[in-house]
Amino acid sequence: MLTRLTISTPRREVLQEITEAVAEVVRNSGVASGVCYVIVPHTTAAVTLNEAADPAVSTDTINYLAELIPREGLWLHAEGNSDAHIKASLYGHSAIVPIEDGELVLGNWQGIYLAEFDGPRQRLVLVKIIAG
Amino acid sequence: MLTRLTISTPRREVLQEITEAVAEVVRNSGVASGVCYVIVPHTTAAVTLNEAADPAVSTDTINYLAELIPREGLWLHAEGNSDAHIKASLYGHSAIVPIEDGELVLGNWQGIYLAEFDGPRQRLVLVKIIAG
Amino acid sequence: MLTRLTISTPRREVLQEITEAVAEVVRNSGVASGVCYVIVPHTTAAVTLNEAADPAVSTDTINYLAELIPREGLWLHAEGNSDAHIKASLYGHSAIVPIEDGELVLGNWQGIYLAEFDGPRQRLVLVKIIAG
Repeated sequence: MLTRLTISTPRREVLQEITEAVAEVVRNSGVASGVCYVIVPHTTAAVTLNEAADPAVSTDTINYLAELIPREGLWLHAEGNSDAHIKASLYGHSAIVPIEDGELVLGNWQGIYLAEFDGPRQRLVLVKIIAG
Repeated sequence: MLTRLTISTPRREVLQEITEAVAEVVRNSGVASGVCYVIVPHTTAAVTLNEAADPAVSTDTINYLAELIPREGLWLHAEGNSDAHIKASLYGHSAIVPIEDGELVLGNWQGIYLAEFDGPRQRLVLVKIIAG
Repeated sequence: MLTRLTISTPRREVLQEITEAVAEVVRNSGVASGVCYVIVPHTTAAVTLNEAADPAVSTDTINYLAELIPREGLWLHAEGNSDAHIKASLYGHSAIVPIEDGELVLGNWQGIYLAEFDGPRQRLVLVKIIAG
């Protein structure tokens, strides 16, 4: 089972929560036990797990990364988004969440995020489920 | 099969090796061929693979990260651990290790580490095995 | 199925594309639907997905990382490659790509890269396929 979700991101850099959309795919799959992979097939966006309770965590993260890897710089890549490519590779393009009793096994504080580094855009998120 | 390991970390920031505990779960599973996922369901800790031979590698890593992402700063998140959230997302919450002949397939120098960025604490590590 | 690829890297730090070699393993497997894991069993190399169209993206990435995590420094690890260990852990040792209709599901711009941080060397890349 490979499900494609379309997510619209509102600005250039944002951690956008997608936990509920992924959880719904898992519930609809009918798989009781297995693994769920959340994947972005993009090179300037990523997937991460982080605290969903306080939105300040996402803001701190985005602000910190913007300072660490500035958009402007002596980049060779002429499209002006080398910072986004580097951030995406550092964050990684996938997250792995176990499935137990038909539900995602997430920690109390964990949410699943699409990490947008070069929006606003429409992004694709792949949700792949393996039973076992 | 989803196994929960409880790991106590001794200080705020440490790479704590858990290779042997994960290897034991794999051996007990009786799975000859497949994939082992090592996952932390936390937002201020991570999982990584790194050199297990020289403990100076872990020390260099922790010291470097502490300098790159300082605990004190103009963080919005009021709990004083934004640095830990950012480090955890950069490191990632999971590691993937193939299983062959009933054993983890690790490189000669690789060990599996729980990366603690906001301890000391008791942490949960999930070990999920898929046969195939 | 666990396939071992041997990859020669030409210099100390380079993102070396291995998309075609991985795609061939997937085609030879005969698996129509599943997941492909690309894994390096090393501690100073990593796996990442990034833009394959413009080689300047790889150059920008390598140059940026070399500046962020300098090879020379007050490192405790005596082998002179602590920078490579830290970069490898930040990038991660694996990539996950779904398989659909017998082919890797990659985005238009995505390529699979071995990230070499302490070459030139011969490196092993593990390609593990799970059907499902």
